[in-house]
Amino acid sequence: MPSPPPDWVKALKPQGPQGSELLAQERAQSNVNVEKLSELLHTKEYLERQEKLLKLLQPEKVFDKSQNHSLGRVERLQRSLAKGKRLQQMAVQYKWDADEYLKANDLIGEPTPYGLHASMFLVTLREQGTPEQHELFLRRAEKYEYIGCYAQTELGHGSNVRGLETRADWNPEDQTFTINSPTLTSSKWWIGSLGRAANHAVVMAQLYIGGKNMGPHPFVVQIRDLETHQPLENVYVGDIGPKFGYNTMDNGFLLFNNVKIPHVNMLARFSRVDKETGKYVRPASPSLVYGTLTWVRSNIVLQAGGVLARGVTIATRYCAVRRQFQDRDAAANSEENQVLNYKMVQVRLLPLLAAMYALHFTGRGMMRLYQENQNRMKASSSTSEDTRGAGPEELRAGAELLADLHATSCGLKALASTSAGEGLEICRRACGGHGYSSYSGIGPWYSDYLPTLTWEGDNYMLTQQVARYLLKSARAVLAGKDAGNDTARILRTYLDRRDKGASFDVLDTDADIVAAFAWRTAHLTFEALKHRDGEKRSWNSLLVDFWRLSTAHSQYLVVKNFYEAVSSPELSSALDPETKTLMHHLFQLYALHTLEREAAEFFSSGAVTVRQITLARTTAVMKLLDEIRPHAVRLVDAWAIPDWQLDSSLGRYDGKVYEDLFRRASQENPVNDFVFDPYPWNEAVLKNEPPKSKL
Amino acid sequence: MPSPPPDWVKALKPQGPQGSELLAQERAQSNVNVEKLSELLHTKEYLERQEKLLKLLQPEKVFDKSQNHSLGRVERLQRSLAKGKRLQQMAVQYKWDADEYLKANDLIGEPTPYGLHASMFLVTLREQGTPEQHELFLRRAEKYEYIGCYAQTELGHGSNVRGLETRADWNPEDQTFTINSPTLTSSKWWIGSLGRAANHAVVMAQLYIGGKNMGPHPFVVQIRDLETHQPLENVYVGDIGPKFGYNTMDNGFLLFNNVKIPHVNMLARFSRVDKETGKYVRPASPSLVYGTLTWVRSNIVLQAGGVLARGVTIATRYCAVRRQFQDRDAAANSEENQVLNYKMVQVRLLPLLAAMYALHFTGRGMMRLYQENQNRMKASSSTSEDTRGAGPEELRAGAELLADLHATSCGLKALASTSAGEGLEICRRACGGHGYSSYSGIGPWYSDYLPTLTWEGDNYMLTQQVARYLLKSARAVLAGKDAGNDTARILRTYLDRRDKGASFDVLDTDADIVAAFAWRTAHLTFEALKHRDGEKRSWNSLLVDFWRLSTAHSQYLVVKNFYEAVSSPELSSALDPETKTLMHHLFQLYALHTLEREAAEFFSSGAVTVRQITLARTTAVMKLLDEIRPHAVRLVDAWAIPDWQLDSSLGRYDGKVYEDLFRRASQENPVNDFVFDPYPWNEAVLKNEPPKSKL
Repeated sequence: MPSPPPDWVKALKPQGPQGSELLAQERAQSNVNVEKLSELLHTKEYLERQEKLLKLLQPEKVFDKSQNHSLGRVERLQRSLAKGKRLQQMAVQYKWDADEYLKANDLIGEPTPYGLHASMFLVTLREQGTPEQHELFLRRAEKYEYIGCYAQTELGHGSNVRGLETRADWNPEDQTFTINSPTLTSSKWWIGSLGRAANHAVVMAQLYIGGKNMGPHPFVVQIRDLETHQPLENVYVGDIGPKFGYNTMDNGFLLFNNVKIPHVNMLARFSRVDKETGKYVRPASPSLVYGTLTWVRSNIVLQAGGVLARGVTIATRYCAVRRQFQDRDAAANSEENQVLNYKMVQVRLLPLLAAMYALHFTGRGMMRLYQENQNRMKASSSTSEDTRGAGPEELRAGAELLADLHATSCGLKALASTSAGEGLEICRRACGGHGYSSYSGIGPWYSDYLPTLTWEGDNYMLTQQVARYLLKSARAVLAGKDAGNDTARILRTYLDRRDKGASFDVLDTDADIVAAFAWRTAHLTFEALKHRDGEKRSWNSLLVDFWRLSTAHSQYLVVKNFYEAVSSPELSSALDPETKTLMHHLFQLYALHTLEREAAEFFSSGAVTVRQITLARTTAVMKLLDEIRPHAVRLVDAWAIPDWQLDSSLGRYDGKVYEDLFRRASQENPVNDFVFDPYPWNEAVLKNEPPKSKL
Repeated sequence: MPSPPPDWVKALKPQGPQGSELLAQERAQSNVNVEKLSELLHTKEYLERQEKLLKLLQPEKVFDKSQNHSLGRVERLQRSLAKGKRLQQMAVQYKWDADEYLKANDLIGEPTPYGLHASMFLVTLREQGTPEQHELFLRRAEKYEYIGCYAQTELGHGSNVRGLETRADWNPEDQTFTINSPTLTSSKWWIGSLGRAANHAVVMAQLYIGGKNMGPHPFVVQIRDLETHQPLENVYVGDIGPKFGYNTMDNGFLLFNNVKIPHVNMLARFSRVDKETGKYVRPASPSLVYGTLTWVRSNIVLQAGGVLARGVTIATRYCAVRRQFQDRDAAANSEENQVLNYKMVQVRLLPLLAAMYALHFTGRGMMRLYQENQNRMKASSSTSEDTRGAGPEELRAGAELLADLHATSCGLKALASTSAGEGLEICRRACGGHGYSSYSGIGPWYSDYLPTLTWEGDNYMLTQQVARYLLKSARAVLAGKDAGNDTARILRTYLDRRDKGASFDVLDTDADIVAAFAWRTAHLTFEALKHRDGEKRSWNSLLVDFWRLSTAHSQYLVVKNFYEAVSSPELSSALDPETKTLMHHLFQLYALHTLEREAAEFFSSGAVTVRQITLARTTAVMKLLDEIRPHAVRLVDAWAIPDWQLDSSLGRYDGKVYEDLFRRASQENPVNDFVFDPYPWNEAVLKNEPPKSKL
């Protein structure tokens, strides 16, 4: 029924100049070496892996993306499971390592029902199971005989893990646990891969021994029959319904009616119940668990740059192709202007372009710190096993690094994911009307990304952790017990210089920009400390101050990491001087644009003067926009996001924006398979029988 | 296949205290007279109409909302057309007037394919057609024999109407027009009701007479056969595909291959082509068209309060039901705290609660101004027809009022729709994880609302109109040619007092808050004027300043309108003193929270001191949150949005949040009708044959 375009339509071209010509022109006007910059950002190995996987995945019909945005949830979920299956088959066939499997998942562009099995279920079994439990559960899970999920969040309990209601009661008589859901709000909820796919779950439940609550612990529970895939008796499980995004994932609910499981099903690497005595054995090293969360958050920071880069790539290319209005000061009959030439568009997009670089380098910095810390912990635990013993100084330094890393990861996770999520929506709007089409590629990506702002610690909740750490650090500095890390350093610097005042030269000296951000953090820290310790204000009344403090501190960390990256010898040797200068401009734009948006805090902390802020806004930022503008397209090209992954008519590398929008609307849109009966007095909605459609 | 909950599940209740108890408690702690406040906001007639329509609509199966978020686009569109048909049948059966029809559309909760027929198509025929054309087109359109749309935007041309490419060439030989689409980018695009429903279109095309372009004009063109509903020859038309929201609307594309239409098909009330001579006759009164756009924008302002109110109602009720963590300063074993008690939640939600009232009263003020202007124009045109003649003074005053109204509507449309759209997303996030579920009711509403930020003038583009008007006003004031309106007044006040300085008492005097906002507008206006006229800066380099200026001015207008409303005798006589005081608190919260967010501009304009801003943030706003908190639930109740319209588990009036989430997930979720085969080595995705499902 869909009528293919007649010849007179096929003969039509977009009004000139063509998108492909405009992008060619953009690329011609900049000398940025895209290949070198790509390698610096991603490494050569990464780029080769991407190329190799693309060649394998793109031809497979099961990975076709054309109907993703038109289908209902049932069919999307079925197709997504089929994609997950095929990926798993290919992983075995081509012997993919973990990086390859993850990258392949990225490229197909949607979460599948295997998502939480392949990540949290396997990781939890691996990290929290004993060797015996590895044999029993992990081996079969790795072979996808057990498909699992990680069931923590409940209908009435999200952030507050201690509030979980699901119970696991120890039965000394037969050495089992009874898993039970005492209320409706204790239903597990939001659990990825649980709704339709999983036959096992790691269930976080309050462990009770002799009626005494020992806190939440992980239990492996079978929930569906391995043959029929029907729920087991006394298990009520299903999918929680449609969502703002992530609709190819079967987030599920789960209730237990006194289900008995054997002793071995409590994951027992860290804490356990002694089978014979029924005694609770305390966790060996709680800081290890602490470490996993830090790793998860650091990863979110690292990914945030790439998440944002998808939106910025699409919007930048499209705004170079799209032309609208003449410049008001131009000659009367001049051509319409590229939208990217308007300052109002530049001031929205180019700081995001800078932010994606900033977040990327910051994420790398975080991962490096995390690795250092892991190495140090391994070293110190191996020395202590050797009974040579880590001295108390070493242990204290280790604990302090971990606390710093934990706070840093909390604050940066909140800032980075908020920046990326909100940045994507700014990109979408910068695309004007067409940004609203699913074919823009931004909306679906934004919807799927948004949960990141809430999970692994709600972005507002997390800021309390950062504030608590900064208050603690400030108390230590005041007491002369200085941790010797960067946080202590900036607090001390502030105390030392407070009387003299700051007067940083933010307009001309990059290092002074970093110092101004540090100054603001320190100022807000001591203000908050005064309120809490001096004026004894309630914690609740200070939550807004804490949120501001955490944001300020995290912005400092991003600015500092970005500065270190653009000043590093690694970057200098990888890039030509011109591109290196451009990286400095991106740093300055990110920093000064942030400074200008947060002007009130910078001013009232005395870090800069009102005059400096005005100059930053009206002169420095405007000049940086001019400097960066000609290189914008090459700077997004360097992120090397393949067209197939972008899945965007607007963001195509070749600039054939209008041709592609038209092709998809007329040839890939199932709505056009049907002829409607539009008259209200006719009951039927369709004029014709629905064809055996492409659906 | 969907297993209904077994008895042990049915017996489960949420952990206490129950949501219904918590909301009862909320309502008990406030004396706000919800009924009185509702009537003040909406009028008694409105509330009765809503009640009456609800009773009619809710029982009709066709309006069932339970599957809306699970279905694919084809089925959603079919169902939506069925809803549109039923509404139209009921409109005739019950003899609904325009208000009733609009309200019924609101209640069913989604745009239907009749949307643009019932609005823009009919309005355009009515306002721009001659009596002959009314006979020919409008009568049949009102009877839904002609289903139409308004085809202006093109694939390559959105905001810039002058850039449209579709041509209408006058053929003197046979007194017809030839409509043609010369390029791919000239395809009409985004046209609501066009994709599948319309058989006619009002097409905006460049009128050419003897090869000379006379600018864009409206033409009525038949596009589909009235019997078969198939496209006519040389017409290529279809739906443009899936979108971020608005998926129940068939936004369409449309191309013409030299289609001839008769002379009478050019809508000719304002300008026309003389049939005999082929001469172009100029528009009688271009300002009337100008008026329609102003009306459309004023309506967006008026609706923005209600749009936001949906999100705020949902989030406020849910945050009163949801409990998470103990207060950190509370006793160790105290119960979890209502989320609404946390300052970090209050500071996000309560300013939005204030904003929805602010926007509502501002919208009313706008509509009043619009009516005054319409009356004045009618009066002056009738006097001039009477040849008694309006004097030049009267005409000038009329033109000035219109210019002021135009600028005001542009700026407020941008501010109001941005505030409502972004506010909804803040509400969604304030609901934590469950905000992401479609059952929250916020996400779908947000997605459907977002185009409002782009259409009827992109919110960034519009700010240029405001700036241009303010620059013009400033030049007039400086030249002593004062328009005598409020804009001139605030500019003059600023000039008079500039040397003495401002020093407004924003913390204690409401009128001074308004004055401080006026001062900031005036300051930014003269700054911009200095850059443009004094320093001869390019228009492009000032776009960011203009955007800030427009935002500042529009915030002033909202603050002023809100202040006038809460100080009005109408409000005083309608409300008890306690509720009246609360309205003043809402005004103060909206104003001071805005002032604090825009602190840098208030400070650098000299409107307030840094000390005042700090106090506003740390003391005044915090105190206002405390004052308003106990009344929050009643203040949203007063908006009287029916549960059926909210379509939200989280925002239910009765607080049965968890019961409803669970019911929908387990009983209304088609995904649970299917059993999947989860094993990657089995090719099939389903274990069972899909049942003849509810879909």
